[in-house]
Amino acid sequence: MTDTLKSPTRRQLLSMIGKTAGATAMYQAMTTLGFASESSFKETLDLKGAPAGATIIVLGAGLGGLTAAYELRKAGYTVKVLEFQNRGGGRSWTLNSGDEYTELGGGKVTCDFEEGNYFNGGPWRLPSNHYAVFHYCKQFGVEMQPFIQTNDRAYLHRANHFGGAPQRLGDVKSDIRGHVSELLSKAVNVGSLDRSVNTEDKEMLLEGLKGWGVLDKDYRYVTSHATSKHRGYSVYPGGGLMPNSEPSSTLPMDELLASGMWSDIYNNYTVNEHHPTMFQPVGGMGKIGDAFTRECQEMIEYNAKVTKINQDDSGVTVSYVDSNNPDGEIKTVRADWCVCNIPLTILTQIDINVSAPMKKAMAAVPYDTSYKVGLEFKRRFWEEDEWIYGGLTYTDMPITQISYPSQDMFKDGSGVLLGAYGFGATSYKFNTLTPQERIDVSLAYGKHIHPQYPKEFRAGTSVVWHRIPWTLGCYGIWSESSRDQYYDTLCSIDNRIVLAGEHCSHIPAWQEGAILSGMDAAKRLHQKAKKLG
Amino acid sequence: MTDTLKSPTRRQLLSMIGKTAGATAMYQAMTTLGFASESSFKETLDLKGAPAGATIIVLGAGLGGLTAAYELRKAGYTVKVLEFQNRGGGRSWTLNSGDEYTELGGGKVTCDFEEGNYFNGGPWRLPSNHYAVFHYCKQFGVEMQPFIQTNDRAYLHRANHFGGAPQRLGDVKSDIRGHVSELLSKAVNVGSLDRSVNTEDKEMLLEGLKGWGVLDKDYRYVTSHATSKHRGYSVYPGGGLMPNSEPSSTLPMDELLASGMWSDIYNNYTVNEHHPTMFQPVGGMGKIGDAFTRECQEMIEYNAKVTKINQDDSGVTVSYVDSNNPDGEIKTVRADWCVCNIPLTILTQIDINVSAPMKKAMAAVPYDTSYKVGLEFKRRFWEEDEWIYGGLTYTDMPITQISYPSQDMFKDGSGVLLGAYGFGATSYKFNTLTPQERIDVSLAYGKHIHPQYPKEFRAGTSVVWHRIPWTLGCYGIWSESSRDQYYDTLCSIDNRIVLAGEHCSHIPAWQEGAILSGMDAAKRLHQKAKKLG
Repeated sequence: MTDTLKSPTRRQLLSMIGKTAGATAMYQAMTTLGFASESSFKETLDLKGAPAGATIIVLGAGLGGLTAAYELRKAGYTVKVLEFQNRGGGRSWTLNSGDEYTELGGGKVTCDFEEGNYFNGGPWRLPSNHYAVFHYCKQFGVEMQPFIQTNDRAYLHRANHFGGAPQRLGDVKSDIRGHVSELLSKAVNVGSLDRSVNTEDKEMLLEGLKGWGVLDKDYRYVTSHATSKHRGYSVYPGGGLMPNSEPSSTLPMDELLASGMWSDIYNNYTVNEHHPTMFQPVGGMGKIGDAFTRECQEMIEYNAKVTKINQDDSGVTVSYVDSNNPDGEIKTVRADWCVCNIPLTILTQIDINVSAPMKKAMAAVPYDTSYKVGLEFKRRFWEEDEWIYGGLTYTDMPITQISYPSQDMFKDGSGVLLGAYGFGATSYKFNTLTPQERIDVSLAYGKHIHPQYPKEFRAGTSVVWHRIPWTLGCYGIWSESSRDQYYDTLCSIDNRIVLAGEHCSHIPAWQEGAILSGMDAAKRLHQKAKKLG
Repeated sequence: MTDTLKSPTRRQLLSMIGKTAGATAMYQAMTTLGFASESSFKETLDLKGAPAGATIIVLGAGLGGLTAAYELRKAGYTVKVLEFQNRGGGRSWTLNSGDEYTELGGGKVTCDFEEGNYFNGGPWRLPSNHYAVFHYCKQFGVEMQPFIQTNDRAYLHRANHFGGAPQRLGDVKSDIRGHVSELLSKAVNVGSLDRSVNTEDKEMLLEGLKGWGVLDKDYRYVTSHATSKHRGYSVYPGGGLMPNSEPSSTLPMDELLASGMWSDIYNNYTVNEHHPTMFQPVGGMGKIGDAFTRECQEMIEYNAKVTKINQDDSGVTVSYVDSNNPDGEIKTVRADWCVCNIPLTILTQIDINVSAPMKKAMAAVPYDTSYKVGLEFKRRFWEEDEWIYGGLTYTDMPITQISYPSQDMFKDGSGVLLGAYGFGATSYKFNTLTPQERIDVSLAYGKHIHPQYPKEFRAGTSVVWHRIPWTLGCYGIWSESSRDQYYDTLCSIDNRIVLAGEHCSHIPAWQEGAILSGMDAAKRLHQKAKKLG
């Protein structure tokens, strides 16, 4: 094929037609390389042949529970789902205009946005390798649109570096590549890597560094039209006799290093889960929870607070009360098997007779906290003034990040920013603020990046996950050692009970983990049920 | 602010509220840094006060011509536009289901796609800093959607490397970062850069390289769960007791270097014009040409082939014939001024009395050729089989690249790939193929990347720009020396005639260049007309 590569003749081009042998060999090579076996989710579940009259109780109408309920009903089981809230979908949840809720501590959180604006308090983006999510979304008719994670025009910001001025992500990326390439070229050119790189590779390496780092003929990374072609100009090329373009200034390596902005890139952009292309459901992430709920509607009993889970040799009896009247009548439901999708934060407070190792596993997974603040502004100033369409800004201020909406871009009127989102220690502090204070704090910090904040602010809302009564936290935290000790036990079927949810997955905090866990729990429970007959 | 960064107390968080002095200072710093002055397109044109009764003839209804016509009419001129084709918009053009056209040489090109599928034979993507395009699109109601340029799941491909197997873009990017970081760490650790990097920076540099390159504790880039967290896994983490995740294998540096794939990254992904976020109009790029045409409808006379442009001291007389009957009646139109949007390939063949330097400038800009082949397939196998949603694959085969559609993702049924797109020498060879042969060749090469091609192919179409009668080429090629010698002359007003189009811009081949050129031509012509007027 080599001959035909650079500038094939007409005859060479045509000679390709009809050559088919290569393609078959190629196809085999490709499948061997794993194109088709790259996922833990290889095919749709198609469970069949539930024992006659077999029943399942699912506790919790989150995505893990509903996935199991959906698949087990298809297999022929009679399935009932108990849900604490008056809605299904769990953390797959969107706050829409007019919504409100009461958090632990009694704070009332409102969402007084304009019609059509929304805020994802929980999950908000989908990597394109989250196959199970997309499988069910396609099946359930949930429409997708691209979620812009990487926007090179968004910012990196450090309060005490570059005079507090935000730097364009694309500039920082270009400049890091440039400085690294310059340094490595220098090392290669003085021969200090001759033992690691042979002569032939050395030439190709230098050529690559020159192109990738946009180095000049002396292998230096400098302010120039050449580097501006990559990082952008201070005055962009124009038409006719408009002013000449002017190069933008490269950021010095030492300031870049001292700022710590580099870490924002490898913590947020190069990780596989944030690679483009990413997606979001049209209308908010809650559309996924809504779709699962709709598909499982007939099975779900809402406002059911589980108080006791008692299994014996022939089944599982679940006691529950009306979650709006917990001192009222205790109801019970009995089934042959139980899929428990209740977060461990809450499950560990419920009377449940599982084995001692399972109890230990359930107690071994603490939940991370997290806070999110949504800020609605009268106009989309980030687009109109700063030409930022989607993407994220990362900062070392306690708001941690600002995310620009990937929907309704170029539209006139209001828009909603994710104005603060973080985990860990700062999150616990954010949790101590009242709903109003969270908004005020997010505005006060955020205006250091976007001075338009005070003038354009319209309304705010928030979710601090440790105050959400039905989860008491954001997601299960696993360490390498807790995985080794407890994960298999937590996921195993304990007599007649199996747990499901993101906490029973290797993808905690992601909906994909919850769904895969639900699929796996359904599959194994079905196998056991068929065996026992 | 430092105190409050890592884990501020409640009081520290609250203390931010009400601090406003900083924001003002920040705002000034930001504007000084050029946030608001970054574009050659700073504001909308608002030309006013055309001399009473002044008239303008615009030749060519491409974006440059129509921008000038639109703005000059707003200023008060009586404007007429002559267009060779039976449609406006020029290269801002989309082939829709059922379209056909005849190219030079008599070849008939059809577009037998299913309803709703389309093919952009010309421009197809918009960088987010192309402000002028977005300004007019917003004004004219052209809806935008993200164009996915960078999709880390798309491929880089070399026919004779890695056994011909395509490699995921994200893998190659990760591995290049990793190998470069390992090498530079080695050089730094043995002290060979001590004269370039001081001790403090050295530590931060090593920390950065370790994070960015995903190096192990010994600063090596190796196959591991850590590197797979960035480049992706061979078996992805799952839910419940699904099979354990397995790391993917890193690509060796020497093979990567030999493959030349690195150059695909810096030629196609790091350049500013391809930075995310990019856009495309919903329904095809031709929606832009259509919108300009609609807005200028009353001014345009179609099927008008200009045969002579004759200016004198008081105006410009343009002779033209019916382009479907070139031997028929010669008509003339006279105006005070002329904006000429005719491509130089054609203009240089027309009788026009401009100055000798202008004639020389017009002849100094050759046109690049380019070919594009659109392939419609029965199903979106790139999504369904390979989880590629948008983005591009680059290859060293003569098809050069394959682009996956950014619209209709996740939909069932057919879809259209850009199956070949290139410039230069190979393009001239592609131009020698018949329309059918272009499709056959694109399929024959493309199946080495996507073996599904033969089975799933449905219909094809193409545009080879040197055979397009109304442009005879793709866009004007400028060199540094031709810019120095001829650009200002080409853009200057030659008595009563000014040229407009992408060839009169510093952004050749892009619609932004054409529009900015049209704006600038209109502005300068108006200034001159008012002065004389």
